[in-house]
Amino acid sequence: MKKINTTPLSGMQELLPSTQAIFDNIKNKIEQTYRLHGFQHIETPTIDRNEVLFAKAGGDTEKQIYRVIKTEESATDSTESLRFDHTVPLARYVVEHESELTFPFRVTQIGRNFRGERAQKGRFREFYQCDVDIIGRNELPLVYDAQVIATFYDALKSFLDTPVKVRLNNRKFVSGVLDALGVSDKSAEIYSIIDHAEKVPAEKTEAALRELNLPDDTVVKITTFINTHGDYDMIARLGYENTGLAELKQVSEELEKLGLKGAFEIDMKIVRGLDYYTGTVFETTLPEYPSLGSIGSGGRYDNLASNYTDQKFPGVGASIGLSRLFYVMQENGLIKADNTTAPIDVAIIPMSSDLRDAAYKLASKLRAEGKSTDVVLTDKKLGDMMKYASKVAKSGIVLGESEIESKTAKVKDFTTGEQTEIKL
Amino acid sequence: MKKINTTPLSGMQELLPSTQAIFDNIKNKIEQTYRLHGFQHIETPTIDRNEVLFAKAGGDTEKQIYRVIKTEESATDSTESLRFDHTVPLARYVVEHESELTFPFRVTQIGRNFRGERAQKGRFREFYQCDVDIIGRNELPLVYDAQVIATFYDALKSFLDTPVKVRLNNRKFVSGVLDALGVSDKSAEIYSIIDHAEKVPAEKTEAALRELNLPDDTVVKITTFINTHGDYDMIARLGYENTGLAELKQVSEELEKLGLKGAFEIDMKIVRGLDYYTGTVFETTLPEYPSLGSIGSGGRYDNLASNYTDQKFPGVGASIGLSRLFYVMQENGLIKADNTTAPIDVAIIPMSSDLRDAAYKLASKLRAEGKSTDVVLTDKKLGDMMKYASKVAKSGIVLGESEIESKTAKVKDFTTGEQTEIKL
Repeated sequence: MKKINTTPLSGMQELLPSTQAIFDNIKNKIEQTYRLHGFQHIETPTIDRNEVLFAKAGGDTEKQIYRVIKTEESATDSTESLRFDHTVPLARYVVEHESELTFPFRVTQIGRNFRGERAQKGRFREFYQCDVDIIGRNELPLVYDAQVIATFYDALKSFLDTPVKVRLNNRKFVSGVLDALGVSDKSAEIYSIIDHAEKVPAEKTEAALRELNLPDDTVVKITTFINTHGDYDMIARLGYENTGLAELKQVSEELEKLGLKGAFEIDMKIVRGLDYYTGTVFETTLPEYPSLGSIGSGGRYDNLASNYTDQKFPGVGASIGLSRLFYVMQENGLIKADNTTAPIDVAIIPMSSDLRDAAYKLASKLRAEGKSTDVVLTDKKLGDMMKYASKVAKSGIVLGESEIESKTAKVKDFTTGEQTEIKL
Repeated sequence: MKKINTTPLSGMQELLPSTQAIFDNIKNKIEQTYRLHGFQHIETPTIDRNEVLFAKAGGDTEKQIYRVIKTEESATDSTESLRFDHTVPLARYVVEHESELTFPFRVTQIGRNFRGERAQKGRFREFYQCDVDIIGRNELPLVYDAQVIATFYDALKSFLDTPVKVRLNNRKFVSGVLDALGVSDKSAEIYSIIDHAEKVPAEKTEAALRELNLPDDTVVKITTFINTHGDYDMIARLGYENTGLAELKQVSEELEKLGLKGAFEIDMKIVRGLDYYTGTVFETTLPEYPSLGSIGSGGRYDNLASNYTDQKFPGVGASIGLSRLFYVMQENGLIKADNTTAPIDVAIIPMSSDLRDAAYKLASKLRAEGKSTDVVLTDKKLGDMMKYASKVAKSGIVLGESEIESKTAKVKDFTTGEQTEIKL
């Protein structure tokens, strides 16, 4: 009988070993893709100073920060909190280690972050984020924006069997358009309307624009603008020329060179809520699963560490919220079937304690071949040991006297039921 | 100019990318060894309920627990804390998911734990622990103790180039000896004296025993006992027979079968401070680096989850404190030379923007071969780009018009200076 409540706290991911193996496999593929694209892995501490963490946070995020205190301290003594994303610790890291880093700094962070959100299905209070960033010192050529997008796309494709779409935009382009339309004094409100346009009916978007007391033809122009998406030529035909358009052109061309033709689209609905982004912005979606919304996003920022230093570190980055994505993948049947087998490769069952020696030797051999191998050592009946083996392993080998004599044993594949032979 | 203090908090591990790559490599080898030995990976939440975490903690550990609070909460509202080890969340996990797990449950956890220790060189407040455990339901044959020790030994050997010694003992044997000597009423004090015997001169140990008002010949017997170490026969010759001795015999025999002959020794100085352990106990040391002390340890426990359930889950486990171990390895020159190169394999430098296309294609090819590849896209002079490449990558490839025409390029190894050719 249980003496206390042993369920994990709400908003925490806790998986059974077979599901954990699938999660780990996806995380490894992302890590591996980032690494292959030349990103260097770093880890920043989970706990950081409040002055670091609260410098950038604001609004809801600030309220969601978990502060940490030692048992004998009171809450007002608290000077430390849990990181809520990877960007803030990265900014501190770059400023702290600037003289020892090589720029442009291609960097990846994969780890757990924390936000005290209200518990809700599919919302996590502790969650994995898989970030890639390229940070320049003083400058960073625009072509790196395409590098981050292509890396991010490859990472998603490494574990998703369904098409992935990159929706691209540029905040300089949008603000240039609002300038040209003479409505830049209302840009904050208009950004917010654009950001929500996808989630509400078209009439609502139009009504929201009208509430800003804009001239009729301006409302029509903005509405047309919001609904435009396609390749660069489509966007150019809108007739607005500015720095942002030139950037969209170059990033588009570069993405085509990187093999992403057909995988991305410029889309005026993508502006990203955060003021943080200053140029390129993008979100990724799964066209065959439109209800999932954005499964990862990123963009260009002029200044990574403006709160910590006067030096300028422009950068471009992206992040996959893996705990949430994994959750929605499970809910939507997006987990590949070949990933769902038992976590261990082989279980060896010695029929008596005299045969352990032979079992250990065979296990060493299999491990040297890279196969994860369990030796079953319970004093149970053969049937029970086979049942155990079939639960933990993909295949099983029974070792008895006759196997030792003949120097061959049968390997039973628990999925197919097939038997093959192995030399001892 | 810096605006705020950007150093990481004391007691936190924060590494430069090239050092992080070495750390990751070691962590991967441990993970891989555990996996090959049939251990299933799980992750438990970093944050857990106080009633779970404080149920087992006591003394110093309890004072070191980091409690977490949300911004709007007061400290007295705090019902959640950061885990301080992997054993407590594992106990909760096993009780919670018992009906869905297969026993004996070979399980590994590798992650960060937290203790608010006083800041001190080589002491970490956030630290990696790499745990292996085998948990039985109601029973777990003794032979599994040897499984954990052999796995643990292999994991340490996977990244250490120096001999590793396992020092083995059994708490039942020690308590049986104290019974036989008629001093079991003072066993707590004697355990503590044994536990410290290594760190103080022999006279101090003897004086401490004398302070317990034991008869002279008993003091001599205990002193002899404490100083005994060697193979099973050596221990058996002491003349004490009890369950613990029989267990030491079986575990020793099993370790020899598992190929550890010569790598372990039974040593009466090993009793482990924790009451938690009930049978087999062991520590691992590096004989060529005696000053480092124990680099990982473990043992058998009768009951993993007695605070959470009436059901019995006996187990055996071990843990490497990787952050501390990595720190002492650095301090003692134990990091293998072949690990200390640049984090990325190849950097490709296109000589002009027209050649990016070719650079992207070559990068894709190299990545498909498993090589991490950076494409250098800064608008810098060739010399500066080469300097960048030599810092981030093991080798560099310059792509100019002539390379494209001849369809071959030179690969320069930055370590040796050697040049080889590659087909484009």
